[in-house]
Amino acid sequence: MSADFLALAVPGVQKLSPYVTGKPIEELARELGMDPAQIVKLASNENPLGPSPKALAAIQDALPELTRYPDGSGYALKQKLAARFAIDPAGITLGNGSNDIIDLVARAFLAPGLNAVFSAHAFAAYPISTQATGAESRVVPAINYGHDLDGLIAAMDANTRVAYIANPNNPTGTWFGPEELERFLSRVPAHVVVVLDEAYIEFSEPGELPNGLAYLSRYPNLLVSRTLCKAYGLAGLRIGYGASSAEIAGVLNRVRLPFNVNSLALVAASAALDDEDYVLRSRQVNRAGMRQLEAGLQALGLKWIPSRGNFLAVDFGRDAAPINAALLRQGVIVRPVAGYAMPTFLRVSVGTEAENARFLGALEHVLRG
Amino acid sequence: MSADFLALAVPGVQKLSPYVTGKPIEELARELGMDPAQIVKLASNENPLGPSPKALAAIQDALPELTRYPDGSGYALKQKLAARFAIDPAGITLGNGSNDIIDLVARAFLAPGLNAVFSAHAFAAYPISTQATGAESRVVPAINYGHDLDGLIAAMDANTRVAYIANPNNPTGTWFGPEELERFLSRVPAHVVVVLDEAYIEFSEPGELPNGLAYLSRYPNLLVSRTLCKAYGLAGLRIGYGASSAEIAGVLNRVRLPFNVNSLALVAASAALDDEDYVLRSRQVNRAGMRQLEAGLQALGLKWIPSRGNFLAVDFGRDAAPINAALLRQGVIVRPVAGYAMPTFLRVSVGTEAENARFLGALEHVLRG
Repeated sequence: MSADFLALAVPGVQKLSPYVTGKPIEELARELGMDPAQIVKLASNENPLGPSPKALAAIQDALPELTRYPDGSGYALKQKLAARFAIDPAGITLGNGSNDIIDLVARAFLAPGLNAVFSAHAFAAYPISTQATGAESRVVPAINYGHDLDGLIAAMDANTRVAYIANPNNPTGTWFGPEELERFLSRVPAHVVVVLDEAYIEFSEPGELPNGLAYLSRYPNLLVSRTLCKAYGLAGLRIGYGASSAEIAGVLNRVRLPFNVNSLALVAASAALDDEDYVLRSRQVNRAGMRQLEAGLQALGLKWIPSRGNFLAVDFGRDAAPINAALLRQGVIVRPVAGYAMPTFLRVSVGTEAENARFLGALEHVLRG
Repeated sequence: MSADFLALAVPGVQKLSPYVTGKPIEELARELGMDPAQIVKLASNENPLGPSPKALAAIQDALPELTRYPDGSGYALKQKLAARFAIDPAGITLGNGSNDIIDLVARAFLAPGLNAVFSAHAFAAYPISTQATGAESRVVPAINYGHDLDGLIAAMDANTRVAYIANPNNPTGTWFGPEELERFLSRVPAHVVVVLDEAYIEFSEPGELPNGLAYLSRYPNLLVSRTLCKAYGLAGLRIGYGASSAEIAGVLNRVRLPFNVNSLALVAASAALDDEDYVLRSRQVNRAGMRQLEAGLQALGLKWIPSRGNFLAVDFGRDAAPINAALLRQGVIVRPVAGYAMPTFLRVSVGTEAENARFLGALEHVLRG
């Protein structure tokens, strides 16, 4: 006799809706019987440059040791991060992507009866990780698709343990400045851990957005979450980190799987951090591609949310699902964001010039066809 | 004013003791000012063969796509596993190492007020993952360092949700046969998910131990956990899997991070599964090395627990910590297992002939010096 295993799962997990990933190229190729090389994927905010040569060289050097476990403490990478960003190595938590960091904070601090606050249209990992613990998600309405930071403060109470905010935010691309961040941090109660998700910070121009790391020394309840998967181009290897007080890192490191970061990610991340030219080119390609996409969308009479990320949320003013389906038939993968309460939008990542042109051409075909 | 973040953590996490990993070679080299090449590490049950050439070739092919996210569904690897082992692809859960699988089961099914049962001297991940959820760990005394399967049944009650058993067990190397497994599975209540951890199964001779996968069709509450990190030599990349009913896999996949397995691990695992020669050689090297270690230990008048893994637990009959410390000064890293309630033991992994000889020589020096 078989039990009902979903009914046996803990209540938070029973109600969990898994994260929907960007459709992989191979999957669409299988479905359409199409050559994968003919497909353009602008669905997952991936870096269009291809991997950093320095990261690739570091991987080659590490391959002979692949039968060894990774250094579970991440000693060398933490030293590199600490030196590169002038942060305390004891305050660093390494993650299997920054999603792991977001999840570790939830596991460490959330439980039934407690709550996390975050904005509408914020990254799906926040509600998912919160829900998995059985805690309450307090979703604060957005202002022009951006965070209402005062509203987030107002939503907090004695049972709030975590606030997730993102700058810039995914999937909207919206952002806030240093005064707003300072005002927010200075008003958050001391018992609330603030996760400032800066997964896309490197795509903005230096000085354009506040650098969360600069606030760590004054706010012991702040954790800045960053990733090497975007501007550093290591999405496939999964590597992110949290920077916080040593106290918070100490708690997260209790919950972390001992070998959560693989050994190639550790060495590739160290090398990528040294490849400043790569990050510079990533930013340049993104800036040029953003202009290209904006000009093309404008020519098509479309609207979008101004973005400081490597993606744009385009508003079609009507259900975007049929447009997405038609784009897929053209071999162009973008991201539907109906699950983010944005059913009239599609999110498109900034690709190479050719990829952006391919998307704009397919979109024109779909809209006028 | 800073809050006490450990006090703010959920109760299970507050009481958590993190997993202690095998000491990395680089760390000992730093501490001793020793050349890493002079250090022998037999502390983490790593495969001494070096990586599979087929796995390395697959990694090379995948490197240009490293800026892409992995396929979060693991489609190709699941198809490969399903074909290779004649199991249902819908019942496969891919993990960031099999530790991830062990942890996903805990997150999905355990909470305060519930409990998990497992044996004394069993893998440390079981109590850690249980504790992190706030559930109770019911530790059943071992018989001759092996599982008391009847005792595990007796420890279960209406609030038991998970039983972790390992065959062979780490760090003891003990095992049970098909009749014992069948007797156990047939008596476990339907509401208890049995995690049968077969991380080391490939080191035994074919037919020597029961193949857990063969029991899946009759026991919908069974999950067999396996890894590509040991006999398949991919410890650095982190890749394991659970095989179960589709119902259990469906629950685990809700909790799983969407990109928990990196893209190089996905392709390397597929290739390693095709490299039957590598697994065969792993088993041969292990068998020869086990004989070498046993002969050497016997010559030194030492006792050990007979093992079907790629490691031996050696009993020194007195506190083993000073012996471990002396071995470290000789540049030989083995694993203290005092944390497994085995303070008189050290666990040594089977290495190459030269590594085993180096260990035995250092041990002789330490014991007679």
